[in-house]
Amino acid sequence: MEIFSYSLAMLGTVAFAVTAVLASSKQRISLFGVCVVGIITAIGGGTIRDLILDVPVFWATDLNYIWVGLVSSLLTFVATPLFKRKSILALMLYIDGLGASLFAIQAMDKVWELQFAMPVGPILLGVITAIGGGVTRDVLTGRQSLIMTRELYATPVVLGCIVFSALAHAFPEHRATLGTLCILIIFGIRSAAIHWKLSVPDWLMTKTAEEDGF
Amino acid sequence: MEIFSYSLAMLGTVAFAVTAVLASSKQRISLFGVCVVGIITAIGGGTIRDLILDVPVFWATDLNYIWVGLVSSLLTFVATPLFKRKSILALMLYIDGLGASLFAIQAMDKVWELQFAMPVGPILLGVITAIGGGVTRDVLTGRQSLIMTRELYATPVVLGCIVFSALAHAFPEHRATLGTLCILIIFGIRSAAIHWKLSVPDWLMTKTAEEDGF
Amino acid sequence: MEIFSYSLAMLGTVAFAVTAVLASSKQRISLFGVCVVGIITAIGGGTIRDLILDVPVFWATDLNYIWVGLVSSLLTFVATPLFKRKSILALMLYIDGLGASLFAIQAMDKVWELQFAMPVGPILLGVITAIGGGVTRDVLTGRQSLIMTRELYATPVVLGCIVFSALAHAFPEHRATLGTLCILIIFGIRSAAIHWKLSVPDWLMTKTAEEDGF
Repeated sequence: MEIFSYSLAMLGTVAFAVTAVLASSKQRISLFGVCVVGIITAIGGGTIRDLILDVPVFWATDLNYIWVGLVSSLLTFVATPLFKRKSILALMLYIDGLGASLFAIQAMDKVWELQFAMPVGPILLGVITAIGGGVTRDVLTGRQSLIMTRELYATPVVLGCIVFSALAHAFPEHRATLGTLCILIIFGIRSAAIHWKLSVPDWLMTKTAEEDGF
Repeated sequence: MEIFSYSLAMLGTVAFAVTAVLASSKQRISLFGVCVVGIITAIGGGTIRDLILDVPVFWATDLNYIWVGLVSSLLTFVATPLFKRKSILALMLYIDGLGASLFAIQAMDKVWELQFAMPVGPILLGVITAIGGGVTRDVLTGRQSLIMTRELYATPVVLGCIVFSALAHAFPEHRATLGTLCILIIFGIRSAAIHWKLSVPDWLMTKTAEEDGF
Repeated sequence: MEIFSYSLAMLGTVAFAVTAVLASSKQRISLFGVCVVGIITAIGGGTIRDLILDVPVFWATDLNYIWVGLVSSLLTFVATPLFKRKSILALMLYIDGLGASLFAIQAMDKVWELQFAMPVGPILLGVITAIGGGVTRDVLTGRQSLIMTRELYATPVVLGCIVFSALAHAFPEHRATLGTLCILIIFGIRSAAIHWKLSVPDWLMTKTAEEDGF
């Protein structure tokens, strides 16, 4: 089980790095830029979480995250056309969604163990862990931040984190099972969003304002 | 007195979140984006300060900052037209200025107690606390950073922090009173800037350079 | 020797602040903005490094870095035309390159002493220390991040850090000498890049993709 979830985390790291490099390579960037963008997207969210928790950054004691992020970035650089094939790209998008789900719930577990800022802390840091790397990537590469888009990416993560928090408070003895369930919920919604190209529905968006001069 | 200053801090948190959501909602953003922008603007500056001080982040032990930021963001989302009314908007701008003044001086007090990097530390971290959230908001939403604008927003904060530092070194026994005085000074200048639409005067701006090819 | 390397660090701080202010003053910015941009560029990279290492930020115990950054920024504001003279500007670009080389290797030394995330930690944090301030500057001023440009700035730093890491593992008893050597290597490549206006070669850049709809 431990090994299974670790393998998933590594797979998620691969997908984070690969999709980041592909997304940012609309402009031409250097090999160095590719590595920075790939690694930061893969480990950025968890690093911000650990700084706020004031615990050692997770990759300092397990360098596999760095190596996997680095090698994935290099492979994407070398074989960009391969990774841009529709089938591979789609696969990567799904794994990226699975990675975000997994990282969010794993982070909530870590924060929960530390009893940090309960009950809000786990939700906040779960979301930050899942999307922090992607937001940093967008800021560094000058793309519109994923916070500002209609893509149904962060919203399922937020929903899943809130549901997990509520359920784990109600049934603390089943936290592990509930965590797996919530990973599947987030991943399910995200998969549906990828498959049917769903975006955030209109009533969850701010209104446009012609007359507004703020 | 304690309660009075705490109420002001909460009021400042409301104003930070509300003005942030209004400022960023020129583009359409999702409910999730609204919450992120509101909360980050409200607590971002203090969080950066606490990371640099290496003390627990302030909102981990007092979740009211998160709740107030969240509820203010949600209310602004639901009732955007209300908050965009001239009278409410003006009120929010003034409270936002009061919040920035208060957060800057409160932060200086905290840094002073820790004797961190005296005498420069309190000034640096006072300014970071007051404007760090707003700068992060601008970066995440792709707006021109408030560091780069002519708006008279950060400059009064810097002046007030320098004055407070000088006075508190000269009259350490009156630090509390001097703090209140400096909050009023910063708030006074900021209010004048809002009321008369003042901006940073020309001689405090870098020159334009037609011939410059840097 | 200690004094020599300290003087170089201060000189590097001057150059970081001056070139940052010049680079960002294409737009008109206020005196306050100038100070923020100058100081953040000068100390930003090392601050991120120290947060990740979880050690006190370096400038808290040696305020000279702040003072030198501040005074350099103010001087550049007052005497912009002077600093934009071709000879002074060229000198600053070279010192900036020397500063980046020095900060990278000094940071690697610091990380090495702490045995943090060996063997990858020193390389990662060396690069972050050298370019973190410049990247933050680019994000705050809305310029294209130096990660995304073809300028041969970060690549020599990365190469030098990797070479230093390899050599210092092979010959740990000569680490100090090897550090000096690697500073010279990085500075040499950077100087060549400035002098002959070299940029990152084509085969180290991602391919453009006309057909790509990612």
